[in-house]
Order: sequence, then structure tokens, then C-alpha cells
Amino acid sequence: MKIAIAQLNPTIGDICGNSNLILEAAKKAQIEGANLLLTPELSLLGYPPRDLLMNPIFIAIAAAQLLQLAQVLPPELAVIVGTAMPNADAVKLGEKLLFNSAVLLQNGAVQQVFHKRLLPTYDVFDEDRYFEPGQNSNYFTIGELKIGVTICEDLWNNEEFWGKRSYAGDPISDLTKLGVDLVVNLSASPYSVGKRGVRSAMLHHSVIRSGIPIVYANQVGGNDDIIFDGSSFAVNRQGNLIRVLASFETDFAVLEYDENKQDLIGGGNGEDLSSTTELSSATDLSSTTDLSFEPPFGDAEIWAALVLGVRDYVRKCGFSKVVLGLSGGIDSALVAAIASCAIGPENVLGVLMPSPYSSDHSVNDALELAKNLGIAIEMLPIGDLMKTYDRTLGDLFLNTPFGIAEENIQSRIRGNLLMAISNKFGHLLLSTGNKSEMSVGYCTLYGDMNGGLAVISDVPKTRVYSLCRWLNSAESVGAVSPCPPLEKEIIPVNIIDKAPSAELKPGQVDQDSLPAYDVLDDILQRSIEHHESVQQIIAAGHDEAVVKRVVKLVRQSEFKRRQAAPGLKISDRAFGTGWRMPIAKSSSFETHH
Amino acid sequence: MKIAIAQLNPTIGDICGNSNLILEAAKKAQIEGANLLLTPELSLLGYPPRDLLMNPIFIAIAAAQLLQLAQVLPPELAVIVGTAMPNADAVKLGEKLLFNSAVLLQNGAVQQVFHKRLLPTYDVFDEDRYFEPGQNSNYFTIGELKIGVTICEDLWNNEEFWGKRSYAGDPISDLTKLGVDLVVNLSASPYSVGKRGVRSAMLHHSVIRSGIPIVYANQVGGNDDIIFDGSSFAVNRQGNLIRVLASFETDFAVLEYDENKQDLIGGGNGEDLSSTTELSSATDLSSTTDLSFEPPFGDAEIWAALVLGVRDYVRKCGFSKVVLGLSGGIDSALVAAIASCAIGPENVLGVLMPSPYSSDHSVNDALELAKNLGIAIEMLPIGDLMKTYDRTLGDLFLNTPFGIAEENIQSRIRGNLLMAISNKFGHLLLSTGNKSEMSVGYCTLYGDMNGGLAVISDVPKTRVYSLCRWLNSAESVGAVSPCPPLEKEIIPVNIIDKAPSAELKPGQVDQDSLPAYDVLDDILQRSIEHHESVQQIIAAGHDEAVVKRVVKLVRQSEFKRRQAAPGLKISDRAFGTGWRMPIAKSSSFETHH
Repeated sequence: MKIAIAQLNPTIGDICGNSNLILEAAKKAQIEGANLLLTPELSLLGYPPRDLLMNPIFIAIAAAQLLQLAQVLPPELAVIVGTAMPNADAVKLGEKLLFNSAVLLQNGAVQQVFHKRLLPTYDVFDEDRYFEPGQNSNYFTIGELKIGVTICEDLWNNEEFWGKRSYAGDPISDLTKLGVDLVVNLSASPYSVGKRGVRSAMLHHSVIRSGIPIVYANQVGGNDDIIFDGSSFAVNRQGNLIRVLASFETDFAVLEYDENKQDLIGGGNGEDLSSTTELSSATDLSSTTDLSFEPPFGDAEIWAALVLGVRDYVRKCGFSKVVLGLSGGIDSALVAAIASCAIGPENVLGVLMPSPYSSDHSVNDALELAKNLGIAIEMLPIGDLMKTYDRTLGDLFLNTPFGIAEENIQSRIRGNLLMAISNKFGHLLLSTGNKSEMSVGYCTLYGDMNGGLAVISDVPKTRVYSLCRWLNSAESVGAVSPCPPLEKEIIPVNIIDKAPSAELKPGQVDQDSLPAYDVLDDILQRSIEHHESVQQIIAAGHDEAVVKRVVKLVRQSEFKRRQAAPGLKISDRAFGTGWRMPIAKSSSFETHH
Repeated sequence: MKIAIAQLNPTIGDICGNSNLILEAAKKAQIEGANLLLTPELSLLGYPPRDLLMNPIFIAIAAAQLLQLAQVLPPELAVIVGTAMPNADAVKLGEKLLFNSAVLLQNGAVQQVFHKRLLPTYDVFDEDRYFEPGQNSNYFTIGELKIGVTICEDLWNNEEFWGKRSYAGDPISDLTKLGVDLVVNLSASPYSVGKRGVRSAMLHHSVIRSGIPIVYANQVGGNDDIIFDGSSFAVNRQGNLIRVLASFETDFAVLEYDENKQDLIGGGNGEDLSSTTELSSATDLSSTTDLSFEPPFGDAEIWAALVLGVRDYVRKCGFSKVVLGLSGGIDSALVAAIASCAIGPENVLGVLMPSPYSSDHSVNDALELAKNLGIAIEMLPIGDLMKTYDRTLGDLFLNTPFGIAEENIQSRIRGNLLMAISNKFGHLLLSTGNKSEMSVGYCTLYGDMNGGLAVISDVPKTRVYSLCRWLNSAESVGAVSPCPPLEKEIIPVNIIDKAPSAELKPGQVDQDSLPAYDVLDDILQRSIEHHESVQQIIAAGHDEAVVKRVVKLVRQSEFKRRQAAPGLKISDRAFGTGWRMPIAKSSSFETHH
């Protein structure tokens, strides 16, 4: 039996368009002789549809489209489509109105419906807001073959692997008891650093435990702040990774289940699976038991994720060009490079807005960067505007010292100019703040925080440096296409080497106000991601006063983050959808002894 | 037996401060001879603590403080405190780490712990993110009296009242079967228009059905976007509302349960329950069966809610003064009046920023308003700044027509000046956009949307008018204290009567771009709050082209709302915490036929 995986990139809410993606994949699957086609979780709606699910018209149209799709699909092919199905008993039983379902379509009609059993409510997930958990083990048969159906989180309650249980039930155990031959999974599993390795290691473990091979079909594409990496894969009965689909791009593959061997077998469908780039294309791993996709925590994977996130946000929001401010600093340099790769340098406009406090090298560095990337630039000096603000506020600010207010005015002048360009020419404005700055509030609300998408707001400053160094290295060649030229450094080395500075007053450098970034990032990671207490962080070797100050700054900056642009998520604890923190609060407990 | 209700206003995360509020209330309860003291849901933490609950240090300190509190409370008094309790079996059973609990403290120790059974996940609520639902019916005894304990949502699954079930279980039915004599409830039930009447009608119905009297203790105070109105109350066995505590302010009351009559009895504790204002003080209703608090949907209750929301956000964020732009329009006039009432006119600074497009009457109207309210003003004309932006952008914008870009520059100049004042003097900036504008995007991101709190962003424009008319009427006298003077109109009548205009180009009025506000607000309410389809709204009598345009504008403005300041919530479908909509999406289904 042949099983096709359609690693699709749906647009949220585009029921008609997503339906067409499924139909195209089904035609391809038919041509390749597949018996079964898998699509990702909620493939008809796009994941996550969020409060669109509360709209009865949305649900009604999805239901109508599902039936229409069933009728145009190749009749013999079994196709599993993800959609939200109404819960008929909701009102009677006091349940949620919908199920997160996998629907088996064949011969022009809905054959079976399977409901997701484990509903995540952590991080960015709100599935209990919309869905009732399914109560039954899900499977269907093709010929003699008993195929278990799971949806995303259903696979993630592997108690032995995690060392703890996350849900009462374990669908894999239940399916094992039912004696299924194969488990398929429809996923929309967000990317985070190292996540691909975690998934394959977990499913390797599950297969070894259950003895049942697994085919895992994941969504790909950026949807607002969340990036789905795809990286669909299959694990045979021995726990070997026999097929990996592309990461960070759409893909399609056909696998074979050998009824005699009672296992998935590698390759064999005549497709060319050789890599075009190491990073991102389907790879035939049938001859190996290596479970890692690539070295974890790599700059290459973060780069690819951010490029996809920018590309899809621009495209799905209906833009074709972007604009950003080029300060001559490393953050805007990285964002410009990502944008150039994502949508082509010809669609990127960099704006230099030097002030009297800008150093000469800032302008030169920005110009050199623009030249390296091949992007257009505009130069709009802000000295006159600074003077006019000073004059306008002169009486009111009389006899007050230069301070945060004046520094922020500069940043907000730049933000205003960039938004004027965005409004005038219809370019999407990208903001360039990194996670370290966003954490401690070293950024200006309505100034440099302006933008429709915060490209690197989940990237710590130390990682910004490492990404830029990687980009300049030989390792990135191929991965950074289509950014010319690749023969020489992309990020001017002076941008990497100089002391970081906001240049909002003469001679200012970031480390006037902040600890060194390697120190800061370690404190932030301990506090934000690991929930370590002030005492624990000090015990790890950090200075007490510094730790207390950083933790306080993080708390005090909540009001800025609440109004930040959606930021591409690459960590397990990003600001944004999955960060739900009160603003008006006391956090005296933070420094409690 | 005497039962005290402490209607507290906790600060989120201020475990020590909240503990002191409980202790003070307990001392008062002891003096008044109470046997039992009720506090609101999660009274030790403040509701909603949100992701603070994910911080193990926060939970540990709450646990320590609970034990310490138990030891200093009057030993004979039974006190029920709301807090998050660890779920010891979480890892073993695959459950959430915490319970939302009511803890009975007496004689220096924890006597019993009760867990909330029904966990809301709709609107602003995310309780499944943190809590495991309790499985048992909760009760304890004082003497012969069997007292059932419920927490907020536990009371809201009244299938007969709502005509549908929302959860599988019904704690009230279970407690009825157990034969409890009385039900107490710890709540943190957010305000929305008419909500107080809904609560009392529902609990009247529950009491009639069960025959068990109920004492309902609700949190009061503003926490970010959510306003808790208090309005705690008690319903006797006949279903009569025998006591109502203040709305929108802290309050304390002692009720009596008569063991012979087996019912709550009104008054009788010697407290003076006479109203000081109709709206906001405890009222003895023992002689009446009137279940309504006051006419529903009243301007008075919305006014009081917004005043409380502003006052608490300012105070809990550590500010003492606010600043806002005064355009001479009705939105900023209303916000200035609310702020003056909330924190005193001496703490409100109004800034006039006329442009060459501002009409003379705008400045005069704003000046008159400021005089009426007694607030300070500053005047910062923006003509020079507009010219300097024009000059700075001159080459780039050459031969392009005046449009949205130029209009927004004006708004952003004002936003920049207001933030400069906020930064310089430490005033909290209030933004003044209404819900109608926020819905269709008739507002400037990083311009008039700037602010730490969006005071009226859940108030439709038609309601803005009615609030201003009410404020000028005799009915508001007393309710608007401390705003002097009350003898005359507060909002200059010209501000109410003139055609609304953003004044961003000569002769502009809102109705150049938008339908009349009564039409717009009806379409918006149908679409946003009632999920009516385009067809349904047209069928209700609206013009097809207008409906389609409005629905499209709402969708296209999602990116602005995502970056909006927290806005005080007064409806059941507010933008903000409880509005979770994708930005990058297709909404072709909206106009699907």
C-alpha cells in the first residue's frame, strides 16, 4: 500500500484555497499510485484558526466545502482532511461546540470522522476554548490493514519519554491494544529551536515501545507569529527514520507499506529524493538509523525559520514589498538580510535616518550592507525634525535635563517616517528589535518597535551575533539563496565587531545601561524560560544587583510588549500569543527571600 | 450564624498586600461577631494572575503566605481564602499542576481545601491552561450547618435558566443532593453591561430550583482590561435578593443565617445600609423581591465601570497623573471627564495640539471642556512639525497626492508629543479611541492609538454620545463626584452637537468615510457580537455595499487592534484579551453566498 504525505502551507480561513491545495495533492497522489493521502491538522482551515472557529458561518462553509471536496477528489483514493466538525451533542451534554477532526473522504463522501483526543492548552495553544476532546480510539481499515488515526498532541503523551504524564489518556497505548498495523498523524506542530530532533526522538521511542510504525504529516508555513517547519517524517517498525520531508517549505512524498513485511519501507516510489540544499529538501534516510535532522540549535535552522516566517507573513497579508530602518547596527542588518532572502532584495527598502548623534561609521556600515544585499535605500536625516520637536516642546520642557524623553523622540521620529513610507507606498514595515531588548524594555514604544512584524523579537542578542557570523561564513552558501553576492561577507564585519549602541545621545553604547549581552542573555533565559528565582540565578554565579535589576526591568517592560508587533516565535517561551502576563501587578515575590 | 462578605480589590501578584486585606476584613468580621468570612476567588493572588501561575516561586510564596495568614487570623473565625493549590498527583495522573481552590482557614491552620469544578475557557478566561477541575462536591460544617462551597463558574451551569448546558456537571445539583443548608460562592466575575442583573436573575432561578440560599462574594476592581464590579449579594430560600453590596467599590457586609428559619435573614447586624449614592453603596433589599440592581444597560453603570477601570489601572501601575490629547471632539472629552472623576482633575493634563486643519471651535471647545472639568492644559501647535516632516519627506513623496500617509503623520506627531510629555513627567498617557473606530480601523497606529490604557475602546460611538448627554443631565449629579462643577454642563454642548471629524484635512468629517454611527454601530454589533453573516445583516435592512465594506474594514484592521493598548472591557465581546483573531488570513467566507 502506498501512502502519500501532503506537507501543505494553508492560509488561515482560506477554505476554498486550502481545499484546492488538498485537491492538487490528491491528483498527484493518484498519479503516483497512492492508496491513502495524509494532510496536516485542520488542513481545510489552516492552523490555528483561533476565534474564526466561533463564527458559525465559517463552520458552515467549511462543512459545505468538505462535501464538495469529497465529490471532486479521485474516488478510489482515501484522503484524510483536517477540519472542525460540529459536536451534535454539545448543548445536551454541556460540551464544546466543535471537534478538531480528521475526516476520511473516499468515493465521493465522508466515510469516517475521527476526533483529536488530547487538546493542548499551554503556550500558544487554546484548544479547550473551541474543542471537545474525542473519547474514542480512532482507526480505519484499507483492505486488511488497520490504520490508527491521531492528531498532533495525541502523540505527545509519551510518559516514558518525558518522564511524566501530561494527559490522563495515551492514544498510542490504546491503539496498540487495538492491534493497529500503522499509526498516521495529522499535525500542526510549531517550530522551535531543536524541535525537529525532539519530535523524531519521541516518535522513535513511541515506535520502539509500541512496535507500530508511524507516518507524521506536519503543516508548513508561517501563520502570524507561529512558524510551522513541516519536516514531516516516517518511522518504521524498527524505529528507523525512513523518510524526512523538507523543512520550511511545502513538500510531497509517497511511502510504501509492505503488507508482507508488515512495515513501512523506504524510498521505492521513483521520486528523486536527493537534496538540493542540505537544509530543506526531502531526504532519503532509509539506509540509516540516524534520528537527528541536523545538529540541533543551529543557526541554519533558525535562519530558514525566520525567512519562511517573513515570506509567509508578507504574502498572506497581501504585501509584496517591505521597508525597514537601517541604523548601521547588527539587528537591522540581520533583518534586512532575512527579508532579502525571503522576498528578494528588489522588494526591500532600507531607510537610513541619521541624527547628529549618529556616528559616521553607522551610515557607511548601513550603505555597505545595502550594497552587499542589493537592496534600495533612502536617506532621511532627522536633525531638523529633532530641532522642531525641541522648539515645540521648549517651553514645557524648560530647565529639564536631556533624558529618556528626548532619546525616545528620536526613535519616534524614525518610526513616524517609516510608517509614512509604509502608508504612502504600501510597504510592510518590519521592526528590528531582538529578544534581549524586548525583555528588558530597551526599545521605544511607537518608535523602533513600530512595524507589522517583529522579525527577530524572539532572537536573543547573542544569537543575532551568531546568525550574522554564520551568514558570513562558507556554511551558509546555498542556504541564503537568493541573496547575492555569496562570494563575500554579507554583513559588514564592522557591524559585527563594533560595540552595540542605540546612538540616541553622544557616545552612548548599550553596555552603559545593560550588562554584557552574554551575561544578560543567560540571566534572561534562566528567568524567563526556566522560571529560576533571583536566588537561583545568583547561585549560578551572577551578580546579585545585576540579576535583581534585570528581573525588575523585565517586569516593568510588560506594557511595551503588550503593544508589540507579532514576533516570529523560535523558542518555547516567546513573548506574544503564548505569553500571558498581567501588566498592572505587584511582583514583590520576585525578590522574596 | 453570621456570615461576613469581604468584597476586596486585590492587586494581581501582591500576595503580601492581598493577605493584609484579608486579615483586615477578618478583624472587622470578628468585631461584628461573624462566624464565617468569605473572600473572592483567588483573593490571595488577585484574579486573573495569568502566567504568574506558571512561576513556581509565585506558587511557593502563596503557599507560605497562606500558612502565615492562617496563624494571624482570629482563631475562632472560619475564613475562606481563594488561592492556587498544587495538584500533588499532576505528574502521575497527567493532570494540570494546580487547582483553583477555596481554602478554609480556622484555628491557625488549613482545615479544608475545595477545588473549583467548572473551569471557563471562553472570552478572557484561560483556566484550563493552569488548573485541573475539582471532581468532588465541596462542603464543610459549622455546628449543625452544612455549607456548600462553590467558586465562580461552578454556579453558571444552570441548564434551565440558559436553555442549554455548558458543562457536563452541575455543582448546585450535586450540593442539593448532599442536602447542604447554604451555598457560598467565591467569584471573580467581570463586569459587562447588564451583567449584574443576569447574575441575580440566574441565582434567583437556582435558589428557586434548589431551595438552598446562596451568598455570592465577588471581587471588585480593575485589573488591566477587566473590570470587576463587586455587586456581591445574597439570595434567601424564597429567591429574594436580601442584600446587595456596593458596585464598583470595595465593601463589607455581615449577613445572618437563622438556624430556626433555616434561611438567610436580611439586615439585623446594626450596619447602616442606607445608600449614599443610588449606584454604588450597599442596599438593604430585604423587604422586596425586586431582582434588578437598576435599569439595565444604563449610562450610570458604564460610567462607574470606566471610572473604576481608570483609577485602578493608574494606581496599580504606580502612576499618579495622566495626560491625554484634547482634540475638541467628543471622545477625548469623555475620557477627560472619566479621568477627572477617577483620579481628580488636578491629576489630569489635557494637551491641545491644533494643526492648520483644526477648526477654531475645536480649540475653544477643548478649552471650555478643560475649564468645566478644572484640569490643566498645554497647547502645542503642530504646524511647524508638519512642515518639517513634509520637507524631510519632500523628495521621496514628490508628485504623490495628499492622502492617508499625510493624515497619519499629523496623528503621529501628536502621539509623539504626548509620549514625550509622558516620558518627561511620568504621566500615564490615556488613549481616546472608541469601539466603532477600533472596529473599522478609523484610527492611527502609533498616533491617536498611543497610550497605556484605552479608556473607551469597548464603548461604541453611539454610547459615547449617550454617556456625554447623561453626564450633562441632572441624573448624573452625585455619580460624577468628585468632578466640579455639577451645576452646569460638563461636556460643552457644541462638542456633542457638531459633526464628528478627525480634522486631518480641510473640511473633513467622519461621515465622508464611514456610514452614520447609528448604522455603523448596528452593523458592528450584529457582525462582531452576534456573528451574523453579511446576508443576515442585509436582511435586517442594511445596505449591501455598506455592510460588505464595514465587514471588510473590520477584518483589515486586525493588525491595528493587535498593537492597541489594553482597553477597558464593558461588553461580552471586547477586543483585547478575549478576542483572538489571526491577522494573516483570508476571510473570503465572510461574503460567501
